[in-house]
Amino acid sequence: MKIISSKSNQYIKFIRQLRKRKERVRSGKFYIEGLRLVGEALRTDFPLENILYSSDLLISDFGWKVIEDGKKKGIDIIEVSKDVFQSFALKEGPQGIAAVGFQKWVNFKAIHQPQGLWIALDNVQDPGNLGTIMRSLDGAGGKGLILLGNSTDVYHPTSVRSSTGAVFSLTIGKASLKEFCEWKSKEGVLIIGTVCGEATNYRYYNYPQDMILLMGSEQKGLSKELVEMCEGLVTIPMTGSVDSLNLACAASIVLFEIYAKR
Amino acid sequence: MKIISSKSNQYIKFIRQLRKRKERVRSGKFYIEGLRLVGEALRTDFPLENILYSSDLLISDFGWKVIEDGKKKGIDIIEVSKDVFQSFALKEGPQGIAAVGFQKWVNFKAIHQPQGLWIALDNVQDPGNLGTIMRSLDGAGGKGLILLGNSTDVYHPTSVRSSTGAVFSLTIGKASLKEFCEWKSKEGVLIIGTVCGEATNYRYYNYPQDMILLMGSEQKGLSKELVEMCEGLVTIPMTGSVDSLNLACAASIVLFEIYAKR
Repeated sequence: MKIISSKSNQYIKFIRQLRKRKERVRSGKFYIEGLRLVGEALRTDFPLENILYSSDLLISDFGWKVIEDGKKKGIDIIEVSKDVFQSFALKEGPQGIAAVGFQKWVNFKAIHQPQGLWIALDNVQDPGNLGTIMRSLDGAGGKGLILLGNSTDVYHPTSVRSSTGAVFSLTIGKASLKEFCEWKSKEGVLIIGTVCGEATNYRYYNYPQDMILLMGSEQKGLSKELVEMCEGLVTIPMTGSVDSLNLACAASIVLFEIYAKR
Repeated sequence: MKIISSKSNQYIKFIRQLRKRKERVRSGKFYIEGLRLVGEALRTDFPLENILYSSDLLISDFGWKVIEDGKKKGIDIIEVSKDVFQSFALKEGPQGIAAVGFQKWVNFKAIHQPQGLWIALDNVQDPGNLGTIMRSLDGAGGKGLILLGNSTDVYHPTSVRSSTGAVFSLTIGKASLKEFCEWKSKEGVLIIGTVCGEATNYRYYNYPQDMILLMGSEQKGLSKELVEMCEGLVTIPMTGSVDSLNLACAASIVLFEIYAKR
């Protein structure tokens, strides 16, 4: 097997470019780093273009097992030199294993009467928050995520990492506000919005079995338009000097309230 | 009033150095940026060495009001040029207002029979998580935070920012494991630990009025030593493919469960 040892190799350059949203959008691919994430992508049969490793960096037995699993599944395995690996690695002291995945967006309009618990996020800005919300949604038995408006990218490296693999198992779609509104009416989906201020205490809401929890951006919360689409609104009563919670924490509190009630 | 317009001014150099933990430890000071945080520090009468602003960048009326409030409270107000401000600002497009604060650690051993809800964190690594936990703790009516072991710095700029000001209102102490253990025995403090795995469902625990919620690091959770110190252990049952939650999300879920029950 040939080892890529030049940092200026075209494909290696491309991998580095995947840090940029523009290149992710253009190619429809994204970068996955680390044993845990690559292992989880394989476990869930997530579509991968290849797995990259550096034998100088990959020291764990689990790592070699992941490579073997990848081979068995017919995925291209590419060996690169330590230098090359470090040129695209995002983490200091990388584990020596990474992958390029194919973005997997569901056709949002083709989701008919979604079952179970979903979340929709409007204009979420921070990829760390987005990934952390996917992690909590998955942990709470959620099915999928719909990204609205100008949200950050679910395939941003920070989002992928923060999701600890939930990005591979959740169904993920995106929609404009208009599309979302039309879809809601057509499918008769129940949307429960979360707001700061006057609304039902999230502990006392009778959540339906099939529903979408809707949250706004870190800075602005839900827009008036979105509030009007909601079947119900819930809020997390709080005290102290802060006036709101971190978006991912607020999402987790409500998601685990819903989960505990099921 | 003199305007500092040199980026190599000694004090301006010092402010930039506050990004480093070493300099924060040496000086006992820390850096605060943005309207909201500086405003909150003033509102809570947090000890500030000075407030810095750039009249070219400070465009909001609230900003000028904050400067006036600072003056009235007898705090040094320092004007700096736009260039100088941008040399120490952490945020792109800064709001033109910042401050240097004095770190406010309580003498941990002097806390006798702590009242209300506290949190203790062992070896927390991520300053964003630490700040976010302070935000949720404050929102849930918590009183204070005890940092154990080799935790990240509560006065790290990312922690300060993520706390959205909770860092100014909470009581904050630090202790070695040995000190914490001795203190617990002496004061008869009730400690409830959070773990992944076998423990009481956090929804069904009868939390005492005065208690410390104890959490371990992002990677390793609670050590055996710490688990043995706990009056009770709780866990957040979950499903899906992820095997744990983000530390700040897990803390928030348990804190708001406790808060809702009070």
